[in-house]
Amino acid sequence: MFKVDLNSDLGESFGVYRLGNDEAVLESVTSANVACGFHAGDPKVMIETVRLAKKAGAAVGAHPGHPDLVGFGRRALASTPEEVYAYVLYQTGAIQAACRAQGVTLQHVKAHGALYNQAAKDEALALAIARAVKDAGEGIILMGLANSAFERAAAEAGVPFAAEAFADRAYEPDGSLVSRKKEGAVIHDVDLAAGRVLRMLKEGTVEAVDGSVVSIRPQTICLHGDTPEAVEMARKLRRKLETEGVVVCPLKEVMGL
Amino acid sequence: MFKVDLNSDLGESFGVYRLGNDEAVLESVTSANVACGFHAGDPKVMIETVRLAKKAGAAVGAHPGHPDLVGFGRRALASTPEEVYAYVLYQTGAIQAACRAQGVTLQHVKAHGALYNQAAKDEALALAIARAVKDAGEGIILMGLANSAFERAAAEAGVPFAAEAFADRAYEPDGSLVSRKKEGAVIHDVDLAAGRVLRMLKEGTVEAVDGSVVSIRPQTICLHGDTPEAVEMARKLRRKLETEGVVVCPLKEVMGL
Amino acid sequence: MFKVDLNSDLGESFGVYRLGNDEAVLESVTSANVACGFHAGDPKVMIETVRLAKKAGAAVGAHPGHPDLVGFGRRALASTPEEVYAYVLYQTGAIQAACRAQGVTLQHVKAHGALYNQAAKDEALALAIARAVKDAGEGIILMGLANSAFERAAAEAGVPFAAEAFADRAYEPDGSLVSRKKEGAVIHDVDLAAGRVLRMLKEGTVEAVDGSVVSIRPQTICLHGDTPEAVEMARKLRRKLETEGVVVCPLKEVMGL
Amino acid sequence: MFKVDLNSDLGESFGVYRLGNDEAVLESVTSANVACGFHAGDPKVMIETVRLAKKAGAAVGAHPGHPDLVGFGRRALASTPEEVYAYVLYQTGAIQAACRAQGVTLQHVKAHGALYNQAAKDEALALAIARAVKDAGEGIILMGLANSAFERAAAEAGVPFAAEAFADRAYEPDGSLVSRKKEGAVIHDVDLAAGRVLRMLKEGTVEAVDGSVVSIRPQTICLHGDTPEAVEMARKLRRKLETEGVVVCPLKEVMGL
Repeated sequence: MFKVDLNSDLGESFGVYRLGNDEAVLESVTSANVACGFHAGDPKVMIETVRLAKKAGAAVGAHPGHPDLVGFGRRALASTPEEVYAYVLYQTGAIQAACRAQGVTLQHVKAHGALYNQAAKDEALALAIARAVKDAGEGIILMGLANSAFERAAAEAGVPFAAEAFADRAYEPDGSLVSRKKEGAVIHDVDLAAGRVLRMLKEGTVEAVDGSVVSIRPQTICLHGDTPEAVEMARKLRRKLETEGVVVCPLKEVMGL
Repeated sequence: MFKVDLNSDLGESFGVYRLGNDEAVLESVTSANVACGFHAGDPKVMIETVRLAKKAGAAVGAHPGHPDLVGFGRRALASTPEEVYAYVLYQTGAIQAACRAQGVTLQHVKAHGALYNQAAKDEALALAIARAVKDAGEGIILMGLANSAFERAAAEAGVPFAAEAFADRAYEPDGSLVSRKKEGAVIHDVDLAAGRVLRMLKEGTVEAVDGSVVSIRPQTICLHGDTPEAVEMARKLRRKLETEGVVVCPLKEVMGL
Repeated sequence: MFKVDLNSDLGESFGVYRLGNDEAVLESVTSANVACGFHAGDPKVMIETVRLAKKAGAAVGAHPGHPDLVGFGRRALASTPEEVYAYVLYQTGAIQAACRAQGVTLQHVKAHGALYNQAAKDEALALAIARAVKDAGEGIILMGLANSAFERAAAEAGVPFAAEAFADRAYEPDGSLVSRKKEGAVIHDVDLAAGRVLRMLKEGTVEAVDGSVVSIRPQTICLHGDTPEAVEMARKLRRKLETEGVVVCPLKEVMGL
Repeated sequence: MFKVDLNSDLGESFGVYRLGNDEAVLESVTSANVACGFHAGDPKVMIETVRLAKKAGAAVGAHPGHPDLVGFGRRALASTPEEVYAYVLYQTGAIQAACRAQGVTLQHVKAHGALYNQAAKDEALALAIARAVKDAGEGIILMGLANSAFERAAAEAGVPFAAEAFADRAYEPDGSLVSRKKEGAVIHDVDLAAGRVLRMLKEGTVEAVDGSVVSIRPQTICLHGDTPEAVEMARKLRRKLETEGVVVCPLKEVMGL
């Protein structure tokens, strides 16, 4: 039997600005990565998102990003490891309080956007994030790209690591994601995406853009919810996985924690 | 024997900008109100300030303010109680994480600047703050102006309340502070200031600007540390209080918690 | 023959966040109030909005607000006149550069949200805004609530004043707007709204909430474009006014400048 | 006779935070690069800085940076050329309004910190900046690192270019600055610094860190004013240059404009 967690980025509204359809996507995922106010989200939105996730039975994670609201945290920023540690600790603490207020325990931390991409390849940044997770509290899981610097950093910092894979993204031969700027980076066909996830779970591999085979053993799959199409794709993908016998369940159960 | 806690606003630097002399003022106070990034402070500064406070043996409190960095949180902002609750919960969580990372337990929350002044007179805002303190964790003390809406809000929310008085500020007959815009609002003479604090502690009263006598029983006295003169005044004030037999000690001891 | 300008707030998107349907509302208005990055808008959005306005033949105005992105500039902020002068001058200069780059001349300045409401009743703030308009360049029009402090401030500062009225808002007997917090503050019926505007233009009066008659001679009418319904109402309102013989034309033509 | 302009970064205070001693450094420079609110500075500070520069007889330039207040604009940010164009146009417009209000004409634009360093090596970013300068108004000078992408971009965009050199920074053999992270990047000896500037002006060369000789013909020299030592060094450097017969004069005179 194959188990997997499904996660999605939520709580990305800000002030009067609405983004995504959190309630709809929460029907499909078991883990919610909640924006923490630096690249998206605001204190009120965070509280509301924790409430929605709790109501839907999804676990809550912090989704810290660079302090770059106008860029939505998608632009590489040359922060030092010390800065990244402080940013992640700060944002994680902020969402932890929103959780505590509602009787929820923070499950994981997953870096957002450029911070995620930078740290996946930069040992010092990945370690800064892992240490912030360690210092934020007991038993918090670091979620990060499978086969990346995140995995080694989690081991070094002594925090549990959840390997993440992307259903709708193409992979480079080294296990990194194909840049969104390149053609073919995003997979729009839900059958193709589901097939790739099934192969990851059953065979522990994914086919890279050059046709080579990459080892990958994800515990969680990232889905998107920022457009109606994305929400629909998430829904279909979950159904297909379950039809194929995959058990979609909380991350801690997947990880045997 | 008279006991009192001395508190000061710290951690107000931001990025390359330095403000105050935190190390010097920490020699005089037992409670540090640490800025949380909305009106002053940043994630790195917060971590460093918790470190300094811990080293100096001072207890750490959150010092949340309005999201108004350019105004240093000193301008009244018409936030709703729901917004204020979210802002205080967010900022308190952020500093709690910085504390947890260093093995420190957050002692109190004291609102900053305009948020403090608005809530002292506005029951709904005071209650929003008190509820955020309640929801942020067990046993956190709400620090606020003696005889103000904070006191009633703490009781209603079920959080311990520490009544604060100001050594260097004149009082209105109703127990509120004389606005800084008025002449005579600030007391610069350390002997006069010390005498007023002693009277508060021993007699439970202070003389208002119109000569009337106001009841006040403070558990903590606010000192300032933003200028060299303020640091010097804090030092002298503490010495005078101790010379007069006042025991300057941690807030929880003052409050019998 | 009755002439009137129609204005709407545009360019309120920010980063990845989209707000309003600027292209659609530009089919109905002759003046665009462009957000300048403090309460909404960002440098890229501003350039794009000027481009859209120019293409649609609408005149461009600055729409400066309080530095309160998370509150969309809708919350009263106790800024000093000196601060307000600086904020308006800064934001006006920023949009002027976006205009110059596209061969457009800035037509007017209209304060946004809470800044508008505060200044309409506060002579010092209104004068600060008017002086910023004066200092930003020759011939820029100050647009503001009819019969308010804006009108007197424009005269004192020596800038042309365009009196604004609201088609869809109820009026107090003193000519101020009924607060949105009160029932009946917003008029949703387009016939009723159009009828009120026609009466303003033809008779120079509007009926206040208490039934009393208020003098009002608007040169420009504010329409909204933040929802599909608002865009539709703007379209219908313009059509009705034109059917009734009103000439919808550029503000400078209305004002005889 | 050798002519040169001396420039310094000014107006870097923000809200209650003070940075640098603008009045003192204005005694030594002929061009003031005024921060525009993205990495430092705020609307009030900008107005005050233009006032001080005008009083001191120094020309005013825009000093736009990345939107990174907490990082003081010193961290590389992966902005697109379109974003950089918009940021520079916005900030230049904002300072132009502060200038217009005081009867001052904006002389130049010099990018700040990481934006300067990135654009010096990135043709697309340099061109984005040059085009923003072109579009902001007639005759504005682009100030940038001598022998860098700025020079080519200015030519392509059709704006006058002022080549800048640093008195107190070591050079790489390719004419770029030695990174501040490397030892020996900054020259603290005023005689050495003055000697290097004199050689640049008289021989058109500077010795790089590896002993090789680099061609450089600066029209303006960057001085610093953020510490008392820097202010003193600026003062001495100007005096030495004048003693050696160099005429320190406005940039337009140096450039023959």
